[in-house]
Amino acid sequence: MQFDTLIKANRDRKFFANYNENPKAYDENLNASGLLAFQNRLNSNYILPSAVSSSDFYGEEISPYLQTGLGIHYPKLDANSIINNAVQAFDQWRKLSPNQRYDILFDSLEQVSKRFFELAYATMHTTGQSFLMSFQASGPHACDRALEVMVTGIEQLSYFPNQVDWVKNMGKFDLSIHKNYKPIPKGVGLVIGCSTFPTWNTVPGVYANLITGNSVVIKPHPKAVYPIAIFVEELQNVLIKNNLSPNIVQLAIDSSAEPITKVFAEHDAIKLIDYTGGNNFGDYIESLGKTCFTEKAGINSIIVDSCSNFNAAAQNIAFSFSLYSGQMCTAPQNIYIPASGVSTPDGIVSFDEAVQGITAALKGLMENPKAAAPTLGAIQNDGTIARIQDKINQHQAQTIQLDVKVENAEFNTARLKVPSIIVTDAADSKTYLQECFGPLVFIVKTSNFDESLKIVKDSARNHGAITCLAYSTDKDKMALIEDEMNSVFTPVSFNFTGAAFVNQHAAFSDLHVSGGNPSGNASFTNADFINKRYIWIGNRYML
Amino acid sequence: MQFDTLIKANRDRKFFANYNENPKAYDENLNASGLLAFQNRLNSNYILPSAVSSSDFYGEEISPYLQTGLGIHYPKLDANSIINNAVQAFDQWRKLSPNQRYDILFDSLEQVSKRFFELAYATMHTTGQSFLMSFQASGPHACDRALEVMVTGIEQLSYFPNQVDWVKNMGKFDLSIHKNYKPIPKGVGLVIGCSTFPTWNTVPGVYANLITGNSVVIKPHPKAVYPIAIFVEELQNVLIKNNLSPNIVQLAIDSSAEPITKVFAEHDAIKLIDYTGGNNFGDYIESLGKTCFTEKAGINSIIVDSCSNFNAAAQNIAFSFSLYSGQMCTAPQNIYIPASGVSTPDGIVSFDEAVQGITAALKGLMENPKAAAPTLGAIQNDGTIARIQDKINQHQAQTIQLDVKVENAEFNTARLKVPSIIVTDAADSKTYLQECFGPLVFIVKTSNFDESLKIVKDSARNHGAITCLAYSTDKDKMALIEDEMNSVFTPVSFNFTGAAFVNQHAAFSDLHVSGGNPSGNASFTNADFINKRYIWIGNRYML
Repeated sequence: MQFDTLIKANRDRKFFANYNENPKAYDENLNASGLLAFQNRLNSNYILPSAVSSSDFYGEEISPYLQTGLGIHYPKLDANSIINNAVQAFDQWRKLSPNQRYDILFDSLEQVSKRFFELAYATMHTTGQSFLMSFQASGPHACDRALEVMVTGIEQLSYFPNQVDWVKNMGKFDLSIHKNYKPIPKGVGLVIGCSTFPTWNTVPGVYANLITGNSVVIKPHPKAVYPIAIFVEELQNVLIKNNLSPNIVQLAIDSSAEPITKVFAEHDAIKLIDYTGGNNFGDYIESLGKTCFTEKAGINSIIVDSCSNFNAAAQNIAFSFSLYSGQMCTAPQNIYIPASGVSTPDGIVSFDEAVQGITAALKGLMENPKAAAPTLGAIQNDGTIARIQDKINQHQAQTIQLDVKVENAEFNTARLKVPSIIVTDAADSKTYLQECFGPLVFIVKTSNFDESLKIVKDSARNHGAITCLAYSTDKDKMALIEDEMNSVFTPVSFNFTGAAFVNQHAAFSDLHVSGGNPSGNASFTNADFINKRYIWIGNRYML
Repeated sequence: MQFDTLIKANRDRKFFANYNENPKAYDENLNASGLLAFQNRLNSNYILPSAVSSSDFYGEEISPYLQTGLGIHYPKLDANSIINNAVQAFDQWRKLSPNQRYDILFDSLEQVSKRFFELAYATMHTTGQSFLMSFQASGPHACDRALEVMVTGIEQLSYFPNQVDWVKNMGKFDLSIHKNYKPIPKGVGLVIGCSTFPTWNTVPGVYANLITGNSVVIKPHPKAVYPIAIFVEELQNVLIKNNLSPNIVQLAIDSSAEPITKVFAEHDAIKLIDYTGGNNFGDYIESLGKTCFTEKAGINSIIVDSCSNFNAAAQNIAFSFSLYSGQMCTAPQNIYIPASGVSTPDGIVSFDEAVQGITAALKGLMENPKAAAPTLGAIQNDGTIARIQDKINQHQAQTIQLDVKVENAEFNTARLKVPSIIVTDAADSKTYLQECFGPLVFIVKTSNFDESLKIVKDSARNHGAITCLAYSTDKDKMALIEDEMNSVFTPVSFNFTGAAFVNQHAAFSDLHVSGGNPSGNASFTNADFINKRYIWIGNRYML
């Protein structure tokens, strides 16, 4: 794909994808060879091209489908060695032009694209995503996000000319000064990954650092290393092919028992931090006073006021909170419905009918043998199940638990949990105004539309929100929702039905996280996501 | 000037100015009427169009030339009223399109330009700048900086389209979603002014907030209110002319005895802070965790290695540190010369000869009756004289004080002080590695070029630097200086002689402050200076 076309697509925000998201569009042998590569990797040491000898290894990845360890071990390396390597590599990498860096990075994506199927199996068996989501999110969608970052990077890095001759007429003579303008990278960037989207949430920070001339240390979640290791391996391969140090991008492995993230985050040489994960650690990262880019948690809401087809809305809602068992940062959690019910062309759907409608939609999805297991995927870790079960135990009387057992035909050991629904009242904010990551949603009964909007707005301002879904057929209310929610820096999706889901954020079109509320301080991909990584310097030479 | 031309000029970074900096280029009656307006303003109450009744007034401006108070009084307003006004006005202003805002703001600059001479006298008699510097810095140069900000603003605010229809082929059907993209302003911005450049340093933050849809409260230095009040008056006039609230930009006055800045800075409704001033307060502003743009102090250095004409270099250096008596944030303070002297085509200029040469250049300038007083201007306040004198008293034996008395023919009461030079050794870093604002420079004897560069680099990294001037005829050393100083985010000006001075930063060409070292976290005008003031939000509508 031509760079100019990419620039235009990025600016236009129309649909655009460089990498095909449909596994069936790829050579049919790739699936089999990807699976084989995955299987061969099990119970082995994963040594990257930058390898230095190590006698210690870490490895604690567990398949949420098999519920057994993958047996893959990664060398345990000394933090100071990694940082020293990164500082040295930075001095090499920063000297390349943005275009030289672009070509190398583009090549790395092309190499990764040859391993999309291995990447899919690696993602599936670390995150619990379904095969299709694993393929799409970790492969083509992640690569498109990386490409979006690179394109924005080149555009921003060429905002000023490399050099000019500046001439000022001083009356009797001209004063001439030669000036150059240089985007000076900040240094070594740390990118901290999460366990649910180990590449999609990680590669934007990695490629943003790299395109702007910074070197990178990736600290993946210890339970989701394999997918991002594939990216690092391919990046290092193309760096070596170009006679550059593979240490321009390194992997720093730790374990749950011996976490090492703070050692890196607090190190003087680390100038930039990208972070995806929980709020407590995210707040700590933001408190360090370094340039940082965070995606933390929020509470995503649905406002139901009126709709043209309630069943279509209910099906869309049920799918959105069931997809990957509510483990997406974009998944809705709280559904606000007025006590007076929902207006439709066929009359009012009462509050109780609305609850029943959403429950029925969930039941329909869970009882569909072709759809249920692929929609839910698997729960990434036991902790999520325990937390959800705790919450349910506290609110037993208000909880709707379906009497449906979903089976995964391929993996009967998959860690599954059918989503539960807690029905509560607006006054009981203690129950629903906290993030409940996983397969649990709340239906909140409000006095009226105004109260729904007020709670959702305050929730976004105080607890953060990445998405907001609204159903209304009233133009004035839609405008009000957009204005109010945008004022707390939360985007709104209106009246989604069919194949449009609030969870999905497309590269080259949707901004992911706004950066303006407590759910995070950065956005994929606005200009800030690039520009904060370097400093423009203008030097002047007397002619 | 056409907007497209301005955009191009801004991107090209070639010389460009919308407002003529030469007072003689203006209608000759304007000077007389500007002076008259200034004189009529003395000993009166300055009531802005947004005026509300007040029985209390503040006024403590003192002319550094007359050394008497100006007698201008400004209404003392309640901080909460100002903030409430600003919040209400924000809700009006944010709804205008960027282009509508641009037209109104451009009109305000046009109106200010009719008052450049009054502005010059107002600046002269609050800051102590010479008439010419007052005219240029507060008038055309400030307006050009404002225009640069507005142009960058429009460009950034139109980075994404207003709306698109996004279509994704899903195999058997197309999924169509209507999307809009909105730059949502953050709210009310506080802009804190300084006493030496009350408009040049203030208007970039003001116009950056305004172009992005934020409302503004300006808190000027209590001893330099009049110049920025002219801008506020003209802004409010054009706002009223457009049926908008004048409270979109307000002036908050305080006194040295009853400072009010922290009340505003810590108020929940203040979302953005622009600050120019000392480091302690600047560090406090940065610690508040709000979006902020700071220009603090630094130590600007000169590296002398070799030059083609030492006298020309010495004259340039002497003029640069004498201009406005060293009260420019861009003025050099420390001059590093190797013990082995300076290479020139005519042989080595020894260290002692170099000191003598710079001293002689200063003496020549001070003894030139046409140049001396206009170069020095006047010292803005007594505190600066006292601090400089303290330092001299501590280092009496090393201090060169010229036996020259500069007279200001027009104002024999002007607060003047001929610059002093302290000659010291690199080892005595306690003496020179702190900011000494005002007419005092240090000549530091180093072991060699490498030590000079090392000290200057460390100084910029640890204490901040806005400028660095270097004299070298050695290409390798020049490249090394640029690379090393840029790595601590300090721009370098090389071999300036004649009419090129390191102090001067031109709008549409020179970036003022890099934002990458302790001298400040922002830059006039890069994309960040605009983009941090709003959040991009993308909303989606099912079609």
